[in-house]
Amino acid sequence: MHRSKVRVAQDVLDANATIARANRADFDRAGVRAVNLMSAPGAGKTSLLERVLADGLLHTPGGDVRVGVLEGDVRGSLDAERLSALHVPVTQLNTDPGFGGECHLDANMVRSALGAVALEEIELLVIENVGNLVCPAEFRVGEDARAMISSVTEGEDKPLKYPLMFRACELVVVNKIDLLPHLDFSLEDFLGNLDRVNPGVAHMLVSARTGDGVEAFADWLAGVARRQELPA
Amino acid sequence: MHRSKVRVAQDVLDANATIARANRADFDRAGVRAVNLMSAPGAGKTSLLERVLADGLLHTPGGDVRVGVLEGDVRGSLDAERLSALHVPVTQLNTDPGFGGECHLDANMVRSALGAVALEEIELLVIENVGNLVCPAEFRVGEDARAMISSVTEGEDKPLKYPLMFRACELVVVNKIDLLPHLDFSLEDFLGNLDRVNPGVAHMLVSARTGDGVEAFADWLAGVARRQELPA
Repeated sequence: MHRSKVRVAQDVLDANATIARANRADFDRAGVRAVNLMSAPGAGKTSLLERVLADGLLHTPGGDVRVGVLEGDVRGSLDAERLSALHVPVTQLNTDPGFGGECHLDANMVRSALGAVALEEIELLVIENVGNLVCPAEFRVGEDARAMISSVTEGEDKPLKYPLMFRACELVVVNKIDLLPHLDFSLEDFLGNLDRVNPGVAHMLVSARTGDGVEAFADWLAGVARRQELPA
Repeated sequence: MHRSKVRVAQDVLDANATIARANRADFDRAGVRAVNLMSAPGAGKTSLLERVLADGLLHTPGGDVRVGVLEGDVRGSLDAERLSALHVPVTQLNTDPGFGGECHLDANMVRSALGAVALEEIELLVIENVGNLVCPAEFRVGEDARAMISSVTEGEDKPLKYPLMFRACELVVVNKIDLLPHLDFSLEDFLGNLDRVNPGVAHMLVSARTGDGVEAFADWLAGVARRQELPA
Protein backbone atom coordinates (compact mmCIF):
# COMPACT_ATOMS: atom_id res chain seq x y z
CA MET A 1 0.00 0.00 0.00
CA HIS A 2 1.08 3.60 -0.49
CA ARG A 3 3.04 5.28 2.24
CA SER A 4 0.60 8.22 2.29
CA LYS A 5 -2.27 5.83 2.98
CA VAL A 6 -0.33 4.27 5.86
CA ARG A 7 0.22 7.73 7.31
CA VAL A 8 -3.45 8.70 7.02
CA ALA A 9 -4.44 5.44 8.70
CA GLN A 10 -2.00 6.07 11.55
CA ASP A 11 -3.28 9.63 11.99
CA VAL A 12 -6.83 8.32 12.19
CA LEU A 13 -5.89 5.76 14.83
CA ASP A 14 -3.87 8.33 16.82
CA ALA A 15 -6.80 10.75 16.85
CA ASN A 16 -9.08 7.90 17.86
CA ALA A 17 -6.81 6.94 20.75
CA THR A 18 -6.86 10.51 22.08
CA ILE A 19 -10.66 10.66 22.07
CA ALA A 20 -10.87 7.15 23.55
CA ARG A 21 -8.77 8.37 26.51
CA ALA A 22 -11.18 11.28 26.99
CA ASN A 23 -14.13 8.85 27.03
CA ARG A 24 -12.31 6.66 29.52
CA ALA A 25 -11.61 9.64 31.76
CA ASP A 26 -15.35 10.49 31.73
CA PHE A 27 -16.22 6.89 32.61
CA ASP A 28 -13.67 6.88 35.43
CA ARG A 29 -14.97 10.15 36.89
CA ALA A 30 -18.48 8.70 36.93
CA GLY A 31 -17.27 5.42 38.44
CA VAL A 32 -18.43 3.55 35.37
CA ARG A 33 -16.69 0.57 33.77
CA ALA A 34 -17.26 0.02 30.05
CA VAL A 35 -17.26 -3.16 27.99
CA ASN A 36 -16.90 -3.16 24.20
CA LEU A 37 -18.91 -6.15 22.93
CA MET A 38 -18.10 -7.24 19.39
CA SER A 39 -19.02 -10.02 16.95
CA ALA A 40 -20.02 -10.82 13.39
CA PRO A 41 -23.60 -9.97 12.40
CA GLY A 42 -26.08 -12.34 13.99
CA ALA A 43 -23.66 -14.02 16.41
CA GLY A 44 -25.91 -13.11 19.33
CA LYS A 45 -24.70 -9.93 21.07
CA THR A 46 -28.20 -8.65 21.74
CA SER A 47 -29.65 -12.10 22.50
CA LEU A 48 -26.95 -12.75 25.06
CA LEU A 49 -27.51 -9.40 26.77
CA GLU A 50 -31.27 -10.04 26.71
CA ARG A 51 -30.76 -13.38 28.44
CA VAL A 52 -28.44 -11.89 31.08
CA LEU A 53 -30.93 -9.11 31.84
CA ALA A 54 -34.14 -11.11 31.58
CA ASP A 55 -32.80 -13.75 33.95
CA GLY A 56 -31.54 -11.15 36.43
CA LEU A 57 -28.04 -12.61 36.37
CA LEU A 58 -26.05 -9.40 36.64
CA HIS A 59 -25.11 -9.12 40.28
CA THR A 60 -22.25 -9.52 42.73
CA PRO A 61 -22.32 -10.44 46.43
CA GLY A 62 -22.74 -6.68 46.93
CA GLY A 63 -26.01 -6.54 44.98
CA ASP A 64 -27.33 -5.91 41.48
CA VAL A 65 -25.08 -4.20 38.98
CA ARG A 66 -26.67 -1.07 37.50
CA VAL A 67 -26.10 -1.44 33.78
CA GLY A 68 -26.73 0.70 30.72
CA VAL A 69 -26.33 -0.17 27.05
CA LEU A 70 -25.02 1.89 24.17
CA GLU A 71 -26.36 0.22 21.08
CA GLY A 72 -24.34 0.60 17.86
CA ASP A 73 -26.05 -0.14 14.56
CA VAL A 74 -25.66 1.02 11.00
CA ARG A 75 -29.36 1.77 10.95
CA GLY A 76 -32.52 1.28 12.96
CA SER A 77 -33.21 0.69 16.62
CA LEU A 78 -34.43 -2.91 16.67
CA ASP A 79 -31.87 -4.07 19.24
CA ALA A 80 -32.36 -1.00 21.44
CA GLU A 81 -36.08 -1.70 21.50
CA ARG A 82 -35.49 -5.32 22.51
CA LEU A 83 -33.26 -4.28 25.40
CA SER A 84 -35.43 -1.34 26.50
CA ALA A 85 -38.23 -3.83 27.07
CA LEU A 86 -36.05 -5.22 29.87
CA HIS A 87 -36.05 -1.87 31.67
CA VAL A 88 -32.40 -0.96 31.29
CA PRO A 89 -31.38 2.46 29.95
CA VAL A 90 -30.44 2.06 26.28
CA THR A 91 -28.97 4.72 24.02
CA GLN A 92 -29.10 4.17 20.27
CA LEU A 93 -26.08 5.17 18.18
CA ASN A 94 -26.54 4.88 14.41
CA THR A 95 -23.50 5.01 12.13
CA ASP A 96 -25.60 5.55 9.02
CA PRO A 97 -24.74 9.26 8.52
CA GLY A 98 -21.11 8.18 8.02
CA PHE A 99 -19.33 6.87 4.95
CA GLY A 100 -22.34 5.01 3.51
CA GLY A 101 -22.83 3.60 7.02
CA GLU A 102 -19.74 3.11 9.15
CA CYS A 103 -18.92 -0.54 9.76
CA HIS A 104 -17.68 0.03 13.32
CA LEU A 105 -17.92 2.36 16.29
CA ASP A 106 -15.03 4.71 16.91
CA ALA A 107 -14.21 6.82 19.95
CA ASN A 108 -15.69 9.98 18.45
CA MET A 109 -19.03 8.34 17.65
CA VAL A 110 -19.22 7.04 21.21
CA ARG A 111 -18.26 10.48 22.54
CA SER A 112 -21.02 12.12 20.53
CA ALA A 113 -23.54 9.78 22.17
CA LEU A 114 -22.28 10.11 25.76
CA GLY A 115 -24.38 13.20 26.43
CA ALA A 116 -27.43 10.97 26.15
CA VAL A 117 -26.08 8.33 28.56
CA ALA A 118 -26.91 8.86 32.24
CA LEU A 119 -23.47 7.77 33.51
CA GLU A 120 -24.31 8.83 37.08
CA GLU A 121 -27.08 6.23 37.22
CA ILE A 122 -25.03 3.21 36.14
CA GLU A 123 -21.91 1.26 37.07
CA LEU A 124 -21.43 -0.65 33.85
CA LEU A 125 -21.88 0.51 30.27
CA VAL A 126 -22.07 -2.24 27.67
CA ILE A 127 -21.21 -0.83 24.25
CA GLU A 128 -22.64 -3.13 21.61
CA ASN A 129 -20.57 -2.60 18.49
CA VAL A 130 -21.65 -2.93 14.85
CA GLY A 131 -21.64 -6.56 13.70
CA ASN A 132 -18.26 -6.96 11.96
CA LEU A 133 -15.12 -9.02 12.60
CA VAL A 134 -12.62 -6.55 11.10
CA CYS A 135 -12.73 -2.81 11.84
CA PRO A 136 -14.29 -2.78 15.34
CA ALA A 137 -11.09 -4.45 16.58
CA GLU A 138 -9.02 -1.48 15.37
CA PHE A 139 -10.85 1.30 17.20
CA ARG A 140 -10.80 1.58 20.97
CA VAL A 141 -13.71 3.60 22.27
CA GLY A 142 -12.61 4.12 25.90
CA GLU A 143 -13.61 0.70 27.19
CA ASP A 144 -12.13 -1.12 30.22
CA ALA A 145 -12.53 -4.52 28.63
CA ARG A 146 -13.37 -6.10 25.30
CA ALA A 147 -15.30 -9.28 24.71
CA MET A 148 -16.22 -10.89 21.42
CA ILE A 149 -18.80 -13.49 20.57
CA SER A 150 -18.16 -16.21 18.01
CA SER A 151 -21.07 -18.42 17.01
CA VAL A 152 -20.39 -22.09 16.33
CA THR A 153 -22.40 -21.72 13.11
CA GLU A 154 -19.62 -19.51 11.70
CA GLY A 155 -17.09 -22.34 11.51
CA GLU A 156 -13.83 -23.33 13.17
CA ASP A 157 -11.61 -21.20 10.93
CA LYS A 158 -12.69 -17.74 12.05
CA PRO A 159 -9.79 -17.05 14.49
CA LEU A 160 -7.34 -17.68 11.63
CA LYS A 161 -9.26 -15.51 9.17
CA TYR A 162 -9.92 -12.57 11.50
CA PRO A 163 -6.94 -12.76 13.88
CA LEU A 164 -6.96 -9.12 14.99
CA MET A 165 -10.49 -9.44 16.38
CA PHE A 166 -9.68 -12.62 18.30
CA ARG A 167 -6.50 -11.01 19.64
CA ALA A 168 -8.06 -7.69 20.56
CA CYS A 169 -10.32 -9.10 23.26
CA GLU A 170 -9.78 -10.56 26.70
CA LEU A 171 -12.80 -12.86 26.51
CA VAL A 172 -14.15 -15.03 23.68
CA VAL A 173 -17.75 -16.17 24.16
CA VAL A 174 -18.61 -19.20 22.03
CA ASN A 175 -22.36 -18.94 21.42
CA LYS A 176 -25.14 -21.18 20.02
CA ILE A 177 -23.70 -24.37 21.51
CA ASP A 178 -27.26 -25.79 21.50
CA LEU A 179 -26.75 -26.22 17.73
CA LEU A 180 -23.58 -28.32 18.03
CA PRO A 181 -25.37 -31.66 17.47
CA HIS A 182 -26.65 -30.35 14.14
CA LEU A 183 -23.38 -28.93 12.77
CA ASP A 184 -20.13 -30.21 11.31
CA PHE A 185 -18.22 -28.07 13.78
CA SER A 186 -15.24 -29.26 15.80
CA LEU A 187 -15.02 -27.33 19.05
CA GLU A 188 -11.54 -28.78 19.54
CA ASP A 189 -10.38 -27.37 16.19
CA PHE A 190 -11.92 -23.97 16.96
CA LEU A 191 -10.22 -23.77 20.34
CA GLY A 192 -6.95 -24.89 18.77
CA ASN A 193 -7.21 -22.10 16.19
CA LEU A 194 -8.09 -19.60 18.93
CA ASP A 195 -5.04 -20.69 20.91
CA ARG A 196 -2.83 -20.14 17.87
CA VAL A 197 -3.85 -16.48 17.51
CA ASN A 198 -4.42 -15.56 21.18
CA PRO A 199 -2.75 -18.13 23.45
CA GLY A 200 -4.44 -18.52 26.81
CA VAL A 201 -7.29 -16.07 26.18
CA ALA A 202 -10.31 -16.74 28.39
CA HIS A 203 -13.27 -18.38 26.69
CA MET A 204 -16.67 -19.68 27.70
CA LEU A 205 -19.33 -21.81 26.00
CA VAL A 206 -22.88 -20.46 26.05
CA SER A 207 -26.27 -20.69 24.45
CA ALA A 208 -28.22 -17.45 24.63
CA ARG A 209 -31.22 -19.46 23.43
CA THR A 210 -31.25 -22.10 26.19
CA GLY A 211 -29.44 -20.04 28.82
CA ASP A 212 -26.64 -22.61 29.09
CA GLY A 213 -23.47 -21.01 30.41
CA VAL A 214 -24.89 -17.49 30.37
CA GLU A 215 -24.38 -17.09 34.11
CA ALA A 216 -20.61 -17.25 33.56
CA PHE A 217 -20.82 -14.38 31.09
CA ALA A 218 -22.93 -12.38 33.55
CA ASP A 219 -20.31 -13.04 36.23
CA TRP A 220 -17.59 -11.80 33.91
CA LEU A 221 -19.53 -8.58 33.24
CA ALA A 222 -20.10 -8.09 36.96
CA GLY A 223 -16.39 -8.64 37.55
CA VAL A 224 -15.54 -5.86 35.09
CA ALA A 225 -18.10 -3.57 36.75
CA ARG A 226 -16.39 -4.05 40.12
CA ARG A 227 -12.83 -3.76 38.83
CA GLN A 228 -10.78 -1.34 40.88
CA GLU A 229 -7.51 -1.31 38.98
CA LEU A 230 -7.41 0.56 35.71
CA PRO A 231 -5.43 -1.31 33.06
CA ALA A 232 -3.68 0.94 30.56
CA MET B 1 -20.73 14.36 9.77
CA HIS B 2 -18.30 16.97 8.51
CA ARG B 3 -18.59 18.19 4.97
CA SER B 4 -14.89 17.49 4.35
CA LYS B 5 -15.38 13.87 5.36
CA VAL B 6 -18.29 13.56 2.95
CA ARG B 7 -16.10 14.93 0.17
CA VAL B 8 -13.23 12.53 0.91
CA ALA B 9 -15.68 9.63 0.94
CA GLN B 10 -17.13 10.70 -2.40
CA ASP B 11 -13.65 11.05 -3.91
CA VAL B 12 -12.78 7.54 -2.76
CA LEU B 13 -15.95 6.12 -4.30
CA ASP B 14 -15.42 8.06 -7.56
CA ALA B 15 -11.87 6.75 -7.88
CA ASN B 16 -13.13 3.25 -7.12
CA ALA B 17 -15.79 3.51 -9.83
CA THR B 18 -13.18 4.50 -12.41
CA ILE B 19 -11.00 1.51 -11.60
CA ALA B 20 -14.03 -0.79 -11.49
CA ARG B 21 -14.85 0.25 -15.06
CA ALA B 22 -11.29 -0.61 -16.12
CA ASN B 23 -11.65 -4.06 -14.53
CA ARG B 24 -14.96 -4.53 -16.27
CA ALA B 25 -13.43 -3.58 -19.62
CA ASP B 26 -10.72 -6.21 -19.09
CA PHE B 27 -13.32 -8.83 -18.24
CA ASP B 28 -15.35 -7.91 -21.33
CA ARG B 29 -12.35 -8.10 -23.63
CA ALA B 30 -11.60 -11.60 -22.31
CA GLY B 31 -15.25 -12.65 -22.61
CA VAL B 32 -15.41 -13.18 -18.86
CA ARG B 33 -18.41 -12.43 -16.64
CA ALA B 34 -17.71 -11.65 -12.98
CA VAL B 35 -19.82 -12.22 -9.88
CA ASN B 36 -19.18 -10.42 -6.60
CA LEU B 37 -20.20 -12.84 -3.82
CA MET B 38 -20.73 -11.25 -0.41
CA SER B 39 -21.92 -12.24 3.07
CA ALA B 40 -21.22 -11.97 6.78
CA PRO B 41 -18.35 -14.11 8.13
CA GLY B 42 -19.27 -17.77 8.21
CA ALA B 43 -22.48 -17.50 6.17
CA GLY B 44 -21.17 -20.09 3.72
CA LYS B 45 -19.67 -18.41 0.64
CA THR B 46 -16.87 -20.95 0.31
CA SER B 47 -19.02 -23.93 1.33
CA LEU B 48 -21.60 -23.06 -1.30
CA LEU B 49 -18.97 -22.73 -4.02
CA GLU B 50 -17.41 -26.01 -2.88
CA ARG B 51 -20.76 -27.75 -3.19
CA VAL B 52 -21.42 -26.29 -6.66
CA LEU B 53 -18.00 -27.37 -7.89
CA ALA B 54 -17.80 -30.75 -6.14
CA ASP B 55 -21.20 -31.75 -7.49
CA GLY B 56 -20.34 -30.59 -11.02
CA LEU B 57 -23.41 -28.37 -11.17
CA LEU B 58 -21.97 -25.47 -13.13
CA HIS B 59 -23.08 -26.04 -16.70
CA THR B 60 -25.51 -24.89 -19.37
CA PRO B 61 -27.04 -26.84 -22.28
CA GLY B 62 -23.89 -25.72 -24.14
CA GLY B 63 -21.52 -27.51 -21.72
CA ASP B 64 -19.54 -26.91 -18.55
CA VAL B 65 -18.82 -23.34 -17.49
CA ARG B 66 -15.10 -22.68 -17.08
CA VAL B 67 -14.89 -20.91 -13.74
CA GLY B 68 -12.12 -19.24 -11.73
CA VAL B 69 -12.23 -17.85 -8.21
CA LEU B 70 -10.65 -14.73 -6.75
CA GLU B 71 -10.58 -15.31 -3.03
CA GLY B 72 -10.65 -12.25 -0.79
CA ASP B 73 -9.59 -12.63 2.83
CA VAL B 74 -8.06 -10.39 5.46
CA ARG B 75 -5.42 -13.04 6.02
CA GLY B 76 -4.55 -16.60 5.13
CA SER B 77 -5.45 -18.86 2.24
CA LEU B 78 -7.70 -21.44 3.92
CA ASP B 79 -10.61 -20.91 1.52
CA ALA B 80 -8.36 -20.83 -1.54
CA GLU B 81 -6.89 -24.18 -0.49
CA ARG B 82 -10.37 -25.68 -0.06
CA LEU B 83 -11.38 -24.58 -3.56
CA SER B 84 -8.07 -25.48 -5.22
CA ALA B 85 -8.69 -29.06 -4.12
CA LEU B 86 -11.62 -29.03 -6.53
CA HIS B 87 -9.32 -28.27 -9.47
CA VAL B 88 -10.47 -24.77 -10.30
CA PRO B 89 -7.97 -21.93 -10.70
CA VAL B 90 -8.00 -19.88 -7.49
CA THR B 91 -6.16 -16.62 -6.86
CA GLN B 92 -5.69 -15.46 -3.28
CA LEU B 93 -6.10 -11.77 -2.50
CA ASN B 94 -5.24 -10.76 1.08
CA THR B 95 -6.29 -7.35 2.35
CA ASP B 96 -4.00 -7.55 5.37
CA PRO B 97 -1.38 -5.05 4.13
CA GLY B 98 -4.09 -2.37 4.20
CA PHE B 99 -5.48 -0.30 7.04
CA GLY B 100 -5.01 -2.97 9.73
CA GLY B 101 -6.64 -5.41 7.30
CA GLU B 102 -9.22 -3.95 4.92
CA CYS B 103 -12.74 -5.14 5.65
CA HIS B 104 -13.76 -5.30 1.99
CA LEU B 105 -12.40 -5.67 -1.51
CA ASP B 106 -12.23 -2.55 -3.66
CA ALA B 107 -11.66 -2.18 -7.39
CA ASN B 108 -7.97 -1.39 -6.99
CA MET B 109 -7.28 -4.49 -4.87
CA VAL B 110 -9.01 -6.63 -7.47
CA ARG B 111 -7.07 -4.87 -10.25
CA SER B 112 -3.78 -5.58 -8.48
CA ALA B 113 -4.65 -9.29 -8.47
CA LEU B 114 -5.86 -9.57 -12.06
CA GLY B 115 -2.37 -10.18 -13.42
CA ALA B 116 -2.44 -13.51 -11.60
CA VAL B 117 -5.85 -14.54 -12.99
CA ALA B 118 -5.79 -16.43 -16.31
CA LEU B 119 -8.83 -14.64 -17.76
CA GLU B 120 -8.33 -16.27 -21.17
CA GLU B 121 -8.92 -19.69 -19.64
CA ILE B 122 -12.24 -18.95 -17.92
CA GLU B 123 -15.73 -17.67 -18.70
CA LEU B 124 -16.83 -16.82 -15.18
CA LEU B 125 -14.85 -15.25 -12.34
CA VAL B 126 -16.38 -15.57 -8.89
CA ILE B 127 -14.94 -12.89 -6.61
CA GLU B 128 -15.43 -14.00 -3.02
CA ASN B 129 -15.44 -10.84 -0.92
CA VAL B 130 -14.30 -10.41 2.69
CA GLY B 131 -16.98 -11.53 5.16
CA ASN B 132 -18.74 -8.29 6.11
CA LEU B 133 -22.28 -6.92 5.67
CA VAL B 134 -21.32 -3.24 5.47
CA CYS B 135 -18.42 -1.97 3.33
CA PRO B 136 -18.32 -4.61 0.55
CA ALA B 137 -21.69 -3.26 -0.59
CA GLU B 138 -20.16 0.19 -1.16
CA PHE B 139 -17.34 -0.79 -3.49
CA ARG B 140 -17.98 -2.13 -6.97
CA VAL B 141 -15.05 -4.13 -8.29
CA GLY B 142 -16.04 -4.45 -11.97
CA GLU B 143 -18.54 -7.27 -11.54
CA ASP B 144 -21.47 -8.06 -13.83
CA ALA B 145 -23.66 -9.25 -10.98
CA ARG B 146 -23.72 -9.30 -7.19
CA ALA B 147 -25.10 -12.00 -4.96
CA MET B 148 -25.16 -12.14 -1.20
CA ILE B 149 -25.65 -15.02 1.17
CA SER B 150 -27.61 -14.67 4.40
CA SER B 151 -27.59 -17.57 6.82
CA VAL B 152 -30.78 -18.36 8.72
CA THR B 153 -28.65 -18.55 11.89
CA GLU B 154 -28.07 -14.78 11.64
CA GLY B 155 -31.70 -13.90 12.40
CA GLU B 156 -34.65 -12.36 10.56
CA ASP B 157 -33.66 -8.75 11.21
CA LYS B 158 -30.53 -8.53 9.09
CA PRO B 159 -32.10 -6.88 5.99
CA LEU B 160 -33.32 -4.04 8.24
CA LYS B 161 -29.97 -3.67 9.99
CA TYR B 162 -27.74 -3.85 6.90
CA PRO B 163 -30.07 -2.46 4.20
CA LEU B 164 -27.38 -1.33 1.77
CA MET B 165 -26.01 -4.88 1.44
CA PHE B 166 -29.44 -6.38 0.83
CA ARG B 167 -30.19 -3.63 -1.72
CA ALA B 168 -26.86 -3.81 -3.54
CA CYS B 169 -27.36 -7.33 -4.87
CA GLU B 170 -29.60 -8.91 -7.45
CA LEU B 171 -29.77 -12.27 -5.71
CA VAL B 172 -30.13 -13.18 -2.02
CA VAL B 173 -29.20 -16.76 -1.18
CA VAL B 174 -30.69 -17.94 2.11
CA ASN B 175 -28.29 -20.61 3.37
CA LYS B 176 -28.26 -23.27 6.15
CA ILE B 177 -31.95 -24.09 5.75
CA ASP B 178 -31.15 -27.56 7.14
CA LEU B 179 -30.93 -25.84 10.55
CA LEU B 180 -34.43 -24.32 10.40
CA PRO B 181 -36.02 -27.02 12.63
CA HIS B 182 -33.51 -26.14 15.36
CA LEU B 183 -33.85 -22.34 15.28
CA ASP B 184 -36.35 -19.70 16.37
CA PHE B 185 -36.22 -18.20 12.89
CA SER B 186 -39.27 -17.13 10.92
CA LEU B 187 -38.55 -17.40 7.20
CA GLU B 188 -41.73 -15.42 6.57
CA ASP B 189 -40.48 -12.53 8.72
CA PHE B 190 -37.07 -12.60 7.03
CA LEU B 191 -38.60 -12.49 3.56
CA GLY B 192 -40.94 -9.70 4.68
CA ASN B 193 -37.97 -7.68 5.91
CA LEU B 194 -36.09 -8.39 2.68
CA ASP B 195 -39.07 -7.19 0.67
CA ARG B 196 -39.14 -3.96 2.67
CA VAL B 197 -35.56 -3.04 1.76
CA ASN B 198 -35.34 -4.56 -1.75
CA PRO B 199 -38.83 -5.24 -3.10
CA GLY B 200 -38.98 -8.11 -5.57
CA VAL B 201 -35.30 -9.10 -5.34
CA ALA B 202 -34.67 -12.70 -6.38
CA HIS B 203 -34.00 -15.13 -3.55
CA MET B 204 -33.42 -18.85 -3.17
CA LEU B 205 -33.30 -21.24 -0.23
CA VAL B 206 -30.28 -23.54 -0.02
CA SER B 207 -28.24 -25.73 2.26
CA ALA B 208 -24.61 -25.97 1.24
CA ARG B 209 -24.32 -28.79 3.77
CA THR B 210 -27.05 -31.07 2.39
CA GLY B 211 -26.98 -29.75 -1.18
CA ASP B 212 -30.63 -28.70 -1.03
CA GLY B 213 -31.36 -25.96 -3.54
CA VAL B 214 -27.73 -25.57 -4.59
CA GLU B 215 -28.53 -26.47 -8.21
CA ALA B 216 -30.62 -23.29 -8.49
CA PHE B 217 -27.62 -21.22 -7.38
CA ALA B 218 -25.40 -23.02 -9.90
CA ASP B 219 -27.96 -22.28 -12.60
CA TRP B 220 -27.95 -18.61 -11.63
CA LEU B 221 -24.13 -18.51 -11.88
CA ALA B 222 -24.26 -20.25 -15.27
CA GLY B 223 -26.85 -17.72 -16.40
CA VAL B 224 -24.53 -14.84 -15.51
CA ALA B 225 -21.66 -16.57 -17.33
CA ARG B 226 -23.72 -16.73 -20.51
CA ARG B 227 -25.14 -13.22 -20.26
CA GLN B 228 -24.77 -11.36 -23.54
CA GLU B 229 -26.09 -7.95 -22.63
CA LEU B 230 -23.91 -5.70 -20.53
CA PRO B 231 -25.88 -3.82 -17.89
CA ALA B 232 -24.50 -0.39 -17.03
